Parts: sequence; structure tokens; C-alpha cells
Amino acid sequence: MNSATGSAGRIETFGERLASVFETSGHLCVGIDPHPYLLGEWGFPDSGKGLREFGLRVVEAAHGQIGIVKPQVAFFERHGSAGYEALEVTLAAARQAGLLVIADAKRGDLGTSVEAYAQSWLTPGAPLEADAMTVSAFQGVGSLAAPILLATEYGKGLFVLAATSNPESFATQTAIVGSGEYLARTVAASIVAEMNKSNVSPLGSFGVVIGATVTLADFGLSDRDLVTTPILAPGFGFQGADFASLRSTYGSATSNTVVSSSRGILEAGPGALRDAITAQSAKLALAFSA
Amino acid sequence: MNSATGSAGRIETFGERLASVFETSGHLCVGIDPHPYLLGEWGFPDSGKGLREFGLRVVEAAHGQIGIVKPQVAFFERHGSAGYEALEVTLAAARQAGLLVIADAKRGDLGTSVEAYAQSWLTPGAPLEADAMTVSAFQGVGSLAAPILLATEYGKGLFVLAATSNPESFATQTAIVGSGEYLARTVAASIVAEMNKSNVSPLGSFGVVIGATVTLADFGLSDRDLVTTPILAPGFGFQGADFASLRSTYGSATSNTVVSSSRGILEAGPGALRDAITAQSAKLALAFSA
Repeated sequence: MNSATGSAGRIETFGERLASVFETSGHLCVGIDPHPYLLGEWGFPDSGKGLREFGLRVVEAAHGQIGIVKPQVAFFERHGSAGYEALEVTLAAARQAGLLVIADAKRGDLGTSVEAYAQSWLTPGAPLEADAMTVSAFQGVGSLAAPILLATEYGKGLFVLAATSNPESFATQTAIVGSGEYLARTVAASIVAEMNKSNVSPLGSFGVVIGATVTLADFGLSDRDLVTTPILAPGFGFQGADFASLRSTYGSATSNTVVSSSRGILEAGPGALRDAITAQSAKLALAFSA
Repeated sequence: MNSATGSAGRIETFGERLASVFETSGHLCVGIDPHPYLLGEWGFPDSGKGLREFGLRVVEAAHGQIGIVKPQVAFFERHGSAGYEALEVTLAAARQAGLLVIADAKRGDLGTSVEAYAQSWLTPGAPLEADAMTVSAFQGVGSLAAPILLATEYGKGLFVLAATSNPESFATQTAIVGSGEYLARTVAASIVAEMNKSNVSPLGSFGVVIGATVTLADFGLSDRDLVTTPILAPGFGFQGADFASLRSTYGSATSNTVVSSSRGILEAGPGALRDAITAQSAKLALAFSA
């Protein structure tokens, strides 16, 4: 599932791989978020070793049950190089297990710096290789040119922050740009128009982050703008969103959503993790078939 | 110079330490940007080892000549844990040498994730400890609450992206927020009003990033808004700005600027690096005394 090379030798796009994962393994994505308090509850030390054990346990519990995981890089960064070593082991194990990996890094910068971030996470064989990463366009949608090129070349994906699930982001993301649109809509529309210029069947490779707790219309967005755009949808469980509200939030774009849950599942603890994922996965499948 | 504890045992603020560095060592900040092409030109391998040698050379050349360095994290991240190990060594050497270190990480996220980023870079004793870090407020100025608290507690600083030096950022940063202001101005004004609530003499500890190639008025900003706000000013040298234009760009806030140059100095190569820093430092001192 993780090979980016199709039978004809052409590199599969991230959008194709994502669509195939949706088909075979559903839409649930488990966050690999080793919060210090969770490490404590799980009985793991708050160290590189603890992070590594945590990451591997989540991968093991996800394996064969779901198709996507999303490590939150911030919790690994706390331990510097030891944390990154734990993340490398986790990323490799996840990709080895056939899971699609979205590195939740929210990187953004300009020029050669943002290109270096894309190289860090999207280059085949790089120590931190993932299948996609989250990025920020605060320095302009145009600042993402290098990551888009690189992702296209390697069959990788990007998820650009558009309308996030935290209420304090509202003022920023509903700021009105020169075209008269909300910033969140510009980001999402630019992605649809510019980034996904080709290879959008069945899905584009460039997606947006739209939190599960938001109302699309509040950001000038409509599900019709997002027909072939992957949507990373965090905010389920701990942050308050419920699978049952998926369709009312994302409308016809629900079929493109990566439905992400972290603490809501991770709080089950290492022993009950596999069962918690089974239960959430079944619940989500029900919501999709409703 | 790096001790955050003053004689009375009170923790010195970042603003106090920055003002003191301006006084004793001037305003020049050298970027530690190990671009792959620079590693090649310097004759260093594009590896963790090469990054480490590069970082240590810049620190050695800066030692005793200037007061501030700014490692660009993206170039270290390319090599995963090995890159972060090189960065740890570089950060430690820089702080040991009495340099004030601004980690150019441009991190941003929400809730406990952004808090984890702040812990990563600002906690005393953390493997990646720096004196300040750059952050993004795309997820709202409010999303920076935890980093502000943490920085205050530890005498550390933050530089929030406001008006950056790349032209493609203009549309985003001049988006108009609900209050009718440009986003860049809201970020900068919120910082002045909210983040630097106390301890703003002689300088606040919470600054903004305003590229040297911008015109303040284009973003609705005035030097009068920035009287006690540290300004990280990248864009000199390679990106086209000249020290002679400092006063026309930053006006009366010029005295708060961290004047950052990277490639313009680093391209001198390891042998001529110390002389290049001497020359730029003298040139900048002249611009300040003009």
C-alpha cells in the first residue's frame, strides 16, 4: 500500500493512494500524540525511549485495522534529537505496516527554508519520510511553491491549514484578502485551483485542514469547493466533534475526509488501544453508511 | 551574558538581555543557515556531521564579535535526528559563547501542541534550549497563550511573524481582520498590547518579524506602534535590503531591530567568515551612528 510506484512504473499520486486507503481501510486516522500526561498514564517515561514505545504501540494497534496515522511532531520535538529518533522509528514502522502517514508538522517558511522542510518530510529515503505533511500558508500560498513541486515529484501530499478547530483562530482565518474572500477560503480555493492542477482523479494530492468543529459557511467555504480536495479533519473526540455531525459539517465533501482522533482513542491506554480503535472505526463506518 | 538570573536572583527578561546585547555587541545577527549548496561550497558533507561542523564554525567566527545568532531550523531538520543532534551541539556552543540564540523555527499550532513546541525551545535544560524562537499566529494570536506564559516564566522571548520579506506573503498578511486592520498590524499590535503587558523597559520580550524589504505603511504599521517591541529584521544581503535603508524602513524603531544576515555573510566561506562578520558588523555600526 505504501509503494508509490504503480504497476506501470508511474509514481502513484498521494491522492490515488489516499483514495485507495479510504476504499480498503476507511477514513479513520489515529493521532500519534505522546502528550506528557499520556506517557504518564501509559506508564512510559517522558523521554526518547518513552516516545518510541508510545509510537510503536499505536502503530501496532492500528496495523490491519485502519489505514492512516498522524504523528503530532511537537510532542517528539520536546526531546530534541532523541525525540526525533523516536519519531523516525515510529514513521518507519508505520510505513512498514502499510499505514499512510501524515506528519502533523504545520511547517511554513519562505524560499529555500520551506523547501528544506518539504525535503525533510517528503523525500524518499529521508530519515523523517512521511506520505504527507501539514503546512501553514501564513507566508502566502505562493510560499508553498517548492513543497508543491517536491510533493508532485515524489507522489507525496500536503495539507494546508485553512480553518482550524480552535476558536481563537477565527479572527485570523476570516480576515478578508484583496479578492474580497476570507483567508480560509482563499487558501482552500487556491489549493483547488492552483495546487491540484492535474491528477485530481479520484482525489487531488493537495488538501486542506478544516477542523471538525467549524461551520464551512463561516469561512466562506462550501462543500462544492472541495469536491476532489482531501480534507484533514481533526477535532473529533477530545475537542468535541462527533462522527454523527460529519455530513452536516462537510456535506458532499465528507467522502474526502481524513477523520482524525487522538486523545479520544489514546486515553484508552496501551492495553485497550486496539479495542478502542476497532470501536471507533466501526462507529465511523456506521456514520459513513448512514 | 546568557545567564537568565540577575544579581538579585530575579530572572532577567529576554527584553532586558536583548537590550544589553544591543548595547555591548550591536545589532547584527548572523543566520546559521546550512543550505545544502553552502555545505558544498564550504567543503562539508551534506550530513549531520557537516551540519555540526558548519554550525560550530559560525559560532566560532561570531564569538566575541557580535551578540546574536539565528539558526534556521529547516536546514537541520532535513537530516532528522542527526540534524537535530548537530543543532543541539550548535545551540549549546552558541549559548556557551555568550551569544543570544534565536531559533528560527516558525512553529505554530493550537493548545497543547503549540505548548509542546514552546517547551521544546524555551525550557531551561531542554536539548534544544534557545533564548527565543520565531512563531506563527496563523491559528490566531490567542493560540500563542501557552508559549507566552512559558517564555515569561523562563525569561525567554518570542518573535511572531507579522510582515515577512517574501513578496508572495503580501496577500495573506494584508488580509483585513474584523477590527478593520491588516492582519500584520493586528499581530504586531496584539503583541504590543497583550503580550508585552509588563516588563517592557527597556524592551519587551515579545517581538515581531518584519522583513527588511517591506514598507511598514503597506501593512498599516507605524514605527510608533513598535516603540518597545523587538523586531527581527531578516532580508539583508541576499534578499536585497541594505543596512543604509534601515532607518527609512523601521524609523524610530530601528533601535529595536535585530538585523539579520545569512547568505550574504556565509558565502564568504569558513576561512573568511570571521572577517566577513567583522566587516558587516562595522558597516552596520556605521549605519546606526549615521
